[in-house]
Amino acid sequence: MKALVLEKTRHLALRDMEQPLVLGLDDVKIAVETVGICGSDVHYYTHGRIGPYVVEKPMVLGHEASGVVVEVGANVGALKPGDRVCMEPGIANDKSRATRLGLYNLDPDVVFWATPPIHGCLTPYVVHPANLTFKLPDNVSFAEGAMIEPLAVGMQAVTKARVSPGDVALVIGAGPIGIMVALAALAGGCSTVIISDIQNPKLEIAGCYDGIVAVNSRERDLAGFIREFTGNWGVDVVFEASGHPSAFKGIFEFIRPGGTAVFVGMPVEPVQLDIVSAQSKEVRIETVFRYANVYDRALALIASGKVDLKPLITETYPFGESVQAFERAAEGRPRDIKLQIHLGKDAQ
Amino acid sequence: MKALVLEKTRHLALRDMEQPLVLGLDDVKIAVETVGICGSDVHYYTHGRIGPYVVEKPMVLGHEASGVVVEVGANVGALKPGDRVCMEPGIANDKSRATRLGLYNLDPDVVFWATPPIHGCLTPYVVHPANLTFKLPDNVSFAEGAMIEPLAVGMQAVTKARVSPGDVALVIGAGPIGIMVALAALAGGCSTVIISDIQNPKLEIAGCYDGIVAVNSRERDLAGFIREFTGNWGVDVVFEASGHPSAFKGIFEFIRPGGTAVFVGMPVEPVQLDIVSAQSKEVRIETVFRYANVYDRALALIASGKVDLKPLITETYPFGESVQAFERAAEGRPRDIKLQIHLGKDAQ
Amino acid sequence: MKALVLEKTRHLALRDMEQPLVLGLDDVKIAVETVGICGSDVHYYTHGRIGPYVVEKPMVLGHEASGVVVEVGANVGALKPGDRVCMEPGIANDKSRATRLGLYNLDPDVVFWATPPIHGCLTPYVVHPANLTFKLPDNVSFAEGAMIEPLAVGMQAVTKARVSPGDVALVIGAGPIGIMVALAALAGGCSTVIISDIQNPKLEIAGCYDGIVAVNSRERDLAGFIREFTGNWGVDVVFEASGHPSAFKGIFEFIRPGGTAVFVGMPVEPVQLDIVSAQSKEVRIETVFRYANVYDRALALIASGKVDLKPLITETYPFGESVQAFERAAEGRPRDIKLQIHLGKDAQ
Amino acid sequence: MKALVLEKTRHLALRDMEQPLVLGLDDVKIAVETVGICGSDVHYYTHGRIGPYVVEKPMVLGHEASGVVVEVGANVGALKPGDRVCMEPGIANDKSRATRLGLYNLDPDVVFWATPPIHGCLTPYVVHPANLTFKLPDNVSFAEGAMIEPLAVGMQAVTKARVSPGDVALVIGAGPIGIMVALAALAGGCSTVIISDIQNPKLEIAGCYDGIVAVNSRERDLAGFIREFTGNWGVDVVFEASGHPSAFKGIFEFIRPGGTAVFVGMPVEPVQLDIVSAQSKEVRIETVFRYANVYDRALALIASGKVDLKPLITETYPFGESVQAFERAAEGRPRDIKLQIHLGKDAQ
Repeated sequence: MKALVLEKTRHLALRDMEQPLVLGLDDVKIAVETVGICGSDVHYYTHGRIGPYVVEKPMVLGHEASGVVVEVGANVGALKPGDRVCMEPGIANDKSRATRLGLYNLDPDVVFWATPPIHGCLTPYVVHPANLTFKLPDNVSFAEGAMIEPLAVGMQAVTKARVSPGDVALVIGAGPIGIMVALAALAGGCSTVIISDIQNPKLEIAGCYDGIVAVNSRERDLAGFIREFTGNWGVDVVFEASGHPSAFKGIFEFIRPGGTAVFVGMPVEPVQLDIVSAQSKEVRIETVFRYANVYDRALALIASGKVDLKPLITETYPFGESVQAFERAAEGRPRDIKLQIHLGKDAQ
Repeated sequence: MKALVLEKTRHLALRDMEQPLVLGLDDVKIAVETVGICGSDVHYYTHGRIGPYVVEKPMVLGHEASGVVVEVGANVGALKPGDRVCMEPGIANDKSRATRLGLYNLDPDVVFWATPPIHGCLTPYVVHPANLTFKLPDNVSFAEGAMIEPLAVGMQAVTKARVSPGDVALVIGAGPIGIMVALAALAGGCSTVIISDIQNPKLEIAGCYDGIVAVNSRERDLAGFIREFTGNWGVDVVFEASGHPSAFKGIFEFIRPGGTAVFVGMPVEPVQLDIVSAQSKEVRIETVFRYANVYDRALALIASGKVDLKPLITETYPFGESVQAFERAAEGRPRDIKLQIHLGKDAQ
Repeated sequence: MKALVLEKTRHLALRDMEQPLVLGLDDVKIAVETVGICGSDVHYYTHGRIGPYVVEKPMVLGHEASGVVVEVGANVGALKPGDRVCMEPGIANDKSRATRLGLYNLDPDVVFWATPPIHGCLTPYVVHPANLTFKLPDNVSFAEGAMIEPLAVGMQAVTKARVSPGDVALVIGAGPIGIMVALAALAGGCSTVIISDIQNPKLEIAGCYDGIVAVNSRERDLAGFIREFTGNWGVDVVFEASGHPSAFKGIFEFIRPGGTAVFVGMPVEPVQLDIVSAQSKEVRIETVFRYANVYDRALALIASGKVDLKPLITETYPFGESVQAFERAAEGRPRDIKLQIHLGKDAQ
Repeated sequence: MKALVLEKTRHLALRDMEQPLVLGLDDVKIAVETVGICGSDVHYYTHGRIGPYVVEKPMVLGHEASGVVVEVGANVGALKPGDRVCMEPGIANDKSRATRLGLYNLDPDVVFWATPPIHGCLTPYVVHPANLTFKLPDNVSFAEGAMIEPLAVGMQAVTKARVSPGDVALVIGAGPIGIMVALAALAGGCSTVIISDIQNPKLEIAGCYDGIVAVNSRERDLAGFIREFTGNWGVDVVFEASGHPSAFKGIFEFIRPGGTAVFVGMPVEPVQLDIVSAQSKEVRIETVFRYANVYDRALALIASGKVDLKPLITETYPFGESVQAFERAAEGRPRDIKLQIHLGKDAQ
């Protein structure tokens, strides 16, 4: 079976890759339709590692996926062949202590598509647990279905923020994750989301959404803007979605007394944090690692029209041009929010 | 100064009423512009009492109000003459134990406009604490400003529900409060709000909003509808907004395991509740009494366009026709969501 | 293998009962040491049913158990033969939606010892999932280990109450569950727990604990007592642990503004609840169904000496006198808090 | 009236100090009985400033106080002359936005005893708001009453941690605040509190309490100790109570997946934090600034015997020897937990 294989750093091949496809009792087999390219896929491609995760042998890329069920295991009742679905890519141990607590994303033994040494889903067929496979509502396309994964990160961030209706939020960073957080924050109860970045093309895309106010923090004084916008009170929530060390400097100045910071972006090195300035407002800080129990909610928000991901899909490549898609993604063009690869019929 | 006075049950008069207007250091004086008619105003008019609150001497009606600041006390910095505002009608004791906890709505000594023996605001001028007087954003009209009070009840209900992004909610009762709860729930993070009632005209108005699904519970099996809509799982939150004893029967059947019920409607008598059916799902029940700390958030949602109250304002009467407005309100026409009285310039 | 079998209502036999003991990969086999008699065991014995659960064929009783591991499945790393353990008796579907949320006690497909048609553990050997089997700390006896199950109900109630340090609580009902709730509330942060009942013997046992104030609600005005004790404010939390319909009357009068009620007792029929009196204080109501994720915490509290269950073990019967033990339990003597059956060596 | 006046850095005088004692309607006048010496008092004495707060003119020290009511304002109903009381030292603006939210400790306009330029309470009489003055239960001494202030910091930390019954906590730092946090954590629901420090005398004092396990982190590998103690899982909560930059290094390693860190100590400079290691466990971080709404709860825990502060009172000086008391406090002897000054009758 063909697959997009990362042979080693900077070396991709669309080639045959033997993979066992054993259908367990609680599994489904899925014909993959669409796969989005994530920043982590690109980072493995360009650097061969992310922190402790090192690509040591050829690995199939891709973890943002939708498809069509083609076969179901004996225990599976909720899905049937022909169902259009998207897939949550991390498989935890059902019996672990973290999973029992509802924190399956924190199970240290989780296996996750395209996190070495686990193969990803850029291949025509995958087998996956049925309870991590979600039926797409009729009005949700495969392309949108393959966007649920990054949206889920935003959903997790907003769920942890415990947004109250009418909150004002600041999102730092207008990359794909920052925009996902902003959309989830708006759908999740914020009245306005201010988003800051230093690249105007990204801000323009984010600013097209009703309720999102885009601010270039190089061109304007962000703290002053927030003081004015919030009547010298501060935002209810700051979502840090850039991961840049500089974003953590002065971050608590933006927040109201009793407000919240959510750290979504992952800075490579430890960052400097001014604890006393957090304490003087008793800021609560939440941290986010992937997501748990939000796929169904994300799908519901897409289906009801409260979140529109379509403007974020920049371009779609056929499976046969996967390598080119990754090369483009590695360029990091500022207007590219999401590139996707379409496997569909031709690929099978 | 003229005022709409409830002399006794079923006897209203628009007449002069002496009221002291002493401007304290922390107060503002406001020229009243618009006042909405609430179900409680009407109930005092038709019954002369609500529970323990009895109209024993003439009382000015009205507590849903907007206006223009005309004078400010010496300590007031945040408001100035000419500011367009709306007013939160309950004044708690700043020093009480409940207030110190942030629960000022639960202070037993709260005084509240048009709750006997406290006069309401259907009169050209009122004096009010500055910190209960909220500046209207430029794009929020006086008519909308006078709707913040009922919306605040919905905001309180949704805040207490602790809605997670993408939740599905059921609102029982499509009267003004039910619709306010539904709009707050949508703005506050729900993907879809199902609203049920037995009167089709109310359901039609509610059902005009994107994201609200209206169900006549006499014509359809509500429990079956919910099972189908939620894949046999149940809604995340039920808001009871009718206050009818029958609404409490079987109410926990609608809810998912670990879900929430919020009791907004106030049944006159104790109701029968099936505790065991709540326990089998560990349903959490929240109860709501007016609101606290939500006016600013409600205004932010109106200003950002996430909540549109304009379709709910059925008709506006001049101050001189206040009695007629109350007579119409007392008819309880099914299509009448909100009647308002406009005082404005002509009245002063 | 011998077992205490409920043949039908009021008919018990200690007799041989064929049971398959298949050790799965994630299971352990346990030699049962001590089993407590629960009110539900007694109720099946005397009535043959609890609500929808009907004993239709012979069933082994018992679900409060401790023992010694004698064999472990291939995947089990955390336990080994010889480990002293206690067992959580409800086995949920690992893959269900409720379980994934951390709410495995609410999984509708849970199977639970001695809830028909599932056999209980009053038999020398059982096979059980390893992750529902908890190692006893060295200073926790088998007798205490067999008390973790009822304590877990109290732990669940107190966890859901979200007690703040120094809270004052009222527990209604001084039966075994009421006392467990009271002990968990004290250990869980309450400064004082008032416990009410109408039977003095029960109150005397409860009142022996430091921090528990026992009040006979027939002999004293409970509402007046609480007003005095709390300076006319109310308790922070009421735990209803009697299940009597009369206990729900006026229950919200005991609670402070913004306080909490936790419904632990299970009234057979719907009860009358005064919603408006809950609303006037915005009381939050939590409901409890068994427990999830509290066994380890309960054991930690026993081991650290913060909870002492030993005074609650009234008498212990050898396995051979199990029928007599149940007959005594069915008498409902007011001083009998917990009767236990010891299987130990002689039984095997 | 005599007062202990900090004239300037390192220069204290017990001298007459004119202070207006105007009794407002909601105030009480108190004869001060006992005042504890806090680390912040000592720091003003030795350094003349704490962060932005600079002693620019003579200031009375002291903010941990108990006393006897001698006069009450016209509106005061809950207190009367002769009442034994302790006093919460921070006075917020009742009308501020933070106070209305229940977050009065975060009101930027709060005035706080012995925080420049506000005078403290080391003087025979003070006037104070009645609602910040708490009656001592009969079994709580003046000395204990003057310890409520530092205990309140611990109570705030534990309240924000939202401890679940049976949690295991780590407190970093066994100074007065660390020990207060540990005692509040135990009383507030923890089964065991591990406390770490590098000074054995402090650890010995802390380790005398049942439930506290003292670990010298220079002599033992703290991370290894915690792994062993918690079965390779981690503690539920870490309270950082040292304020040392080194304490933040690796702090998230101690915590279980889904656990909590509470930052109580105030590091002078920004510290390095490893965000990714917090994220991999989705650690929630709470920050603490003084306290709000915990004095009554702290008193309840003392009165019920759940918290015993008496072993922490190292020595008591008469008012006339206040300067010597401060000189001793400035030595920072490792066995000195709390020094107090007794004003009592002789001083008045």
